Amino acid sequence: MTTDSANDTPHGFAPGAYVGFEDFVGPLYARTAQPHGTIMGFRVAREHVNGRNSCHGGMLVAFADMAWGKPLAGRGYDGGWATVRLTTDFLAPADLGDWLEASSVILGRDGDLFTLQGEVRKGDVRIMVGTAVYKGVRSRP
Amino acid sequence: MTTDSANDTPHGFAPGAYVGFEDFVGPLYARTAQPHGTIMGFRVAREHVNGRNSCHGGMLVAFADMAWGKPLAGRGYDGGWATVRLTTDFLAPADLGDWLEASSVILGRDGDLFTLQGEVRKGDVRIMVGTAVYKGVRSRP
Repeated sequence: MTTDSANDTPHGFAPGAYVGFEDFVGPLYARTAQPHGTIMGFRVAREHVNGRNSCHGGMLVAFADMAWGKPLAGRGYDGGWATVRLTTDFLAPADLGDWLEASSVILGRDGDLFTLQGEVRKGDVRIMVGTAVYKGVRSRP
Repeated sequence: MTTDSANDTPHGFAPGAYVGFEDFVGPLYARTAQPHGTIMGFRVAREHVNGRNSCHGGMLVAFADMAWGKPLAGRGYDGGWATVRLTTDFLAPADLGDWLEASSVILGRDGDLFTLQGEVRKGDVRIMVGTAVYKGVRSRP
């Protein structure tokens, strides 16, 4: 994998412009790719692990929640989107120092409700799969 | 609700001894109660919110993942427990400054696999419900 030497971030990923919780738990990175819109990535750091030096399950589900909604960007939801339901299956652990990526695709839509299927990968290994339902939010309906 | 004036933490909750991600996203608090073992709590701060000043869904699912496993404490799992599956339904938003509590009960057990049902509350209002499957980890089998 090609990495940018400065911070060992895989080529193509750039720091995202995140606020609040997404800024706090980062640094999170993103790159554009079809059909996902945006693939998000981060490297498991000290603040992300549990007592076993594996990425904490809470960080993995938070990362999934943040990343799997990205295909909704550009659809006119100026208020973003709110999570309605999130289901996550943990397949394998991730360890301190691992680079993780997450992406999703839209499975269905009912008005402003979107159902997506997502995954989190460590290289070619899927460490989490799941589904999410998000509701698009318009600040001026 | 009775609160401790110093930090506006509801009576009975004390800071927990957390490491890694659980320390990083806190401060998290805990109090002992039956049948849950431990009820966890935290106050939604700037670093927990999204662009709408509501608690980020990622923080809510992370909090659920951290809190819902607590009934497994004291069962001899010196390596803690690993999340296998987490399902969360978001019922209502939580806002900046809200005090949130999470608890769970064990629904079933198959060896070291435990299925729990949990909730996150804002006062008397349930803002999230869900189920979790955790696997107890022994560092010396």
